[in-house]
Amino acid sequence: MTPARFNSPELRANTGLTSGTFDSVEKRAFQGAHQSITPAVATQFNELPAHVWPATATRDEDGVVAIGGVKLTDLVAEYATPLFVVDEEDFRSRCQAMAAAFGGAHHVHYASKAMLTKRIARWVNEEGLSLDVASLGELQIALAANFPAERITAHGNNKSEAFLTLCVTAGVGHVVLDAPQEIGQLNAIARAHNSQQEVLVRVKPGIEAHTHEFIATSHEDQKFGFSLASGAAKAACLEAVAASNLELVGLHCHVGSQVFDAQGFSLAAQRLLHLMRDVRQEIRPADADRLTLLDLGGGYGIAYVADQQPLDVSQVAHTLLNEVARQSAELEMEQPTVLVEPGRAIAGPAAVTVYTVGNVKDVHTAADRTRRYLAIDGGMSDNIRPALYAADYEARVANRNTSGSAVSSRLVGSHCESGDILISEALWPDDIATGDLLAVAATGAYCYAMSSRYNMMLRPAIVSVRDGKASLMMRRETLDDVLALDCDK
Amino acid sequence: MTPARFNSPELRANTGLTSGTFDSVEKRAFQGAHQSITPAVATQFNELPAHVWPATATRDEDGVVAIGGVKLTDLVAEYATPLFVVDEEDFRSRCQAMAAAFGGAHHVHYASKAMLTKRIARWVNEEGLSLDVASLGELQIALAANFPAERITAHGNNKSEAFLTLCVTAGVGHVVLDAPQEIGQLNAIARAHNSQQEVLVRVKPGIEAHTHEFIATSHEDQKFGFSLASGAAKAACLEAVAASNLELVGLHCHVGSQVFDAQGFSLAAQRLLHLMRDVRQEIRPADADRLTLLDLGGGYGIAYVADQQPLDVSQVAHTLLNEVARQSAELEMEQPTVLVEPGRAIAGPAAVTVYTVGNVKDVHTAADRTRRYLAIDGGMSDNIRPALYAADYEARVANRNTSGSAVSSRLVGSHCESGDILISEALWPDDIATGDLLAVAATGAYCYAMSSRYNMMLRPAIVSVRDGKASLMMRRETLDDVLALDCDK
Repeated sequence: MTPARFNSPELRANTGLTSGTFDSVEKRAFQGAHQSITPAVATQFNELPAHVWPATATRDEDGVVAIGGVKLTDLVAEYATPLFVVDEEDFRSRCQAMAAAFGGAHHVHYASKAMLTKRIARWVNEEGLSLDVASLGELQIALAANFPAERITAHGNNKSEAFLTLCVTAGVGHVVLDAPQEIGQLNAIARAHNSQQEVLVRVKPGIEAHTHEFIATSHEDQKFGFSLASGAAKAACLEAVAASNLELVGLHCHVGSQVFDAQGFSLAAQRLLHLMRDVRQEIRPADADRLTLLDLGGGYGIAYVADQQPLDVSQVAHTLLNEVARQSAELEMEQPTVLVEPGRAIAGPAAVTVYTVGNVKDVHTAADRTRRYLAIDGGMSDNIRPALYAADYEARVANRNTSGSAVSSRLVGSHCESGDILISEALWPDDIATGDLLAVAATGAYCYAMSSRYNMMLRPAIVSVRDGKASLMMRRETLDDVLALDCDK
Repeated sequence: MTPARFNSPELRANTGLTSGTFDSVEKRAFQGAHQSITPAVATQFNELPAHVWPATATRDEDGVVAIGGVKLTDLVAEYATPLFVVDEEDFRSRCQAMAAAFGGAHHVHYASKAMLTKRIARWVNEEGLSLDVASLGELQIALAANFPAERITAHGNNKSEAFLTLCVTAGVGHVVLDAPQEIGQLNAIARAHNSQQEVLVRVKPGIEAHTHEFIATSHEDQKFGFSLASGAAKAACLEAVAASNLELVGLHCHVGSQVFDAQGFSLAAQRLLHLMRDVRQEIRPADADRLTLLDLGGGYGIAYVADQQPLDVSQVAHTLLNEVARQSAELEMEQPTVLVEPGRAIAGPAAVTVYTVGNVKDVHTAADRTRRYLAIDGGMSDNIRPALYAADYEARVANRNTSGSAVSSRLVGSHCESGDILISEALWPDDIATGDLLAVAATGAYCYAMSSRYNMMLRPAIVSVRDGKASLMMRRETLDDVLALDCDK
């Protein structure tokens, strides 16, 4: 493509777009979750689209981006790069929106695997939400942050004896049963501690959400849960009801990740309601009365780039709750309480990662084409998602306004691996230079949580911002943290 | 497939194999690097094929696997699971074989990104090998282990100022120039420290190794090096020669990872020799005489599963060195010294990961088919390669001999993610049960190195074994290691 001035008639002509605002361009460009960024959108490079960037993100007259009223340039001066910046107001407002949509804060379980620190657990608690944990370590951190155990739900396809035991002894609200042998195992632990443990049964409803293969979770051939179709789910429910120290209080399913087709949730609800009715009919009325929770899991899709649109949570919730009410009436049973487990949809858009641009290199990709490689001081160690899931991300220069011609650009990390690519292809201004700060949006979920020390690139710091103030949440790793594990002198 | 007794005539008939030893079956089954495991091979489940498992791996009469003369059951009793076990003898013997193949230990640079601890650096040093580092952190750990700086080569597409400065001040032998602006940057640093820094120039020779897309590194459209075809490589060489405080001593290239087609190395050598000749002709004789190193990088493929065959290093080296001699004579120039950078080929097969089997679950994949899901107490946090590269692995029960019918099995981790699969499909005995120890082979490279704390699953310990003795190399992470970074009380 011939370089063109930003916002020029030439570029619009090249892309077939003769007029229109950013919004309308974006809507036309939107074709689904995995659509690549389109030239016309990418050229609006100084904008910070509200559906992608944190709620409080602004760019001032000098072009400096601030979040939570704190300039990213000031944060970098104090904490260096790479740096995760979490917008507390954004995070909390998403908690509140989820709570409002699903009729009660405690109906919403924040999926801590997306991002968990003590401060995150505190925010979730203060907003009145419940919390999902999926391992002993996640539970321990939640408890270390004084998260009320009774509002915690414990997941996991292979929970260790230590994990199950801590669930019982700490008084975790719900344990989600995931495997046949877990039923007897948990019952024995609860009995040994003279405890009654409330449980849900994780069901595979046989619905495959339309999303990336690696993160789709509700087809039959997967490790989680009990099959609805085979009868295993019903059998597990009956066994849990019969277990002396377990109380079956609900059913659980999870249809996928980054889901944009809301029908999957409704269909899953419908199938689980039928199962709930069937189970209720086979157990004593007192036990049936306890079976009141319908946990539909997470998977609410967010926008990583401008030409994606996040799932409209309030609309989905409205539809879903109506559907559950209607179906329950049809099945002549009391309407269960719908629970949900968003992680990404709360943490994802609340954070950005700020990097410093290092080497800039133009690479010939064909006789008449070049691609500009912009290298930043992080990479697959702090964000494995592009390499792992071919995930899309969007970046902006954060220290100034940019201008210049649009060039085909690729954002790469500093790792000794050619697959260390954060953004594979974007049309960016050609004036981005070494020393510029580049912020990547929507990195709150599954970035720090999955971070590694590959190439001994130590974990970035995380800072939270709100009302003009910044506060360190996780300090930057040092070489001493690595050497603390090394047993040799 | 109908379950069949191991080693039974039925199974051989089913697979079309009527006779033959394990070796011949394996050879017939071998069709390349990414061939899936075949039923006939998988059923030899108590074997530990020597080309996949560590050199000292044995199974005793009770079926207990030992490495370095230490039973894995004893190691697990002391260090728990998951546990990385490194066979020191295997690691050292691979260093020695590489040194012999390439005509001198210091010609072989161990690529530390594959696996680096202080002990690993010491072993590499004691074997006389050189060392590659690709980041400030890797260099710092090498120096902390007293690795001689003059035998260290520094790589990286985006070396930080701090990294380049430490290279100069510590006296690192070679820095590999990777980007145009790095030439002036490094020269300025060397000048500021009154130092002459020997450098190589990383060249993109335009050869795409036949390997997985994410880890192929020598085509033009990638972040590393200077293009040979465009003239950028030659220009970089001339600029380095002209720089007051740099001394150009060699050329470098890297054709890919897990390479099984040795011709790629020869072709790359040929192209770099032509460039070397061209550069020599344009610089002063004294400078030309210094340009004597031909670093052909790494990428030597190993066998992760029985039906793969590792690249024959001594044969490849023999061919390559002859080719370089022939070409040099043809170009009428002195033969350069060939350097190589194996990481995986040294560390990979030297280690195994030992897990404990947890939940076992049979899942219907079709009306008449089931798949057995075996869950272990680790997963994508300690081995991201299957999820990241669709990498193959092979596992064996380590605490006893197994028997029983062959069932379609899948090895999954404990993470809250359906893509957390270590081995997607294998035919394994149906008697594998909760509590069994399962060892996964060839996990020495890029497993611990890329490990994360996803789901707060803390890093396993690493223990090295030799001559009947075990010694902890890296201690297991604890929750306190995570909380040490957390800034909240």
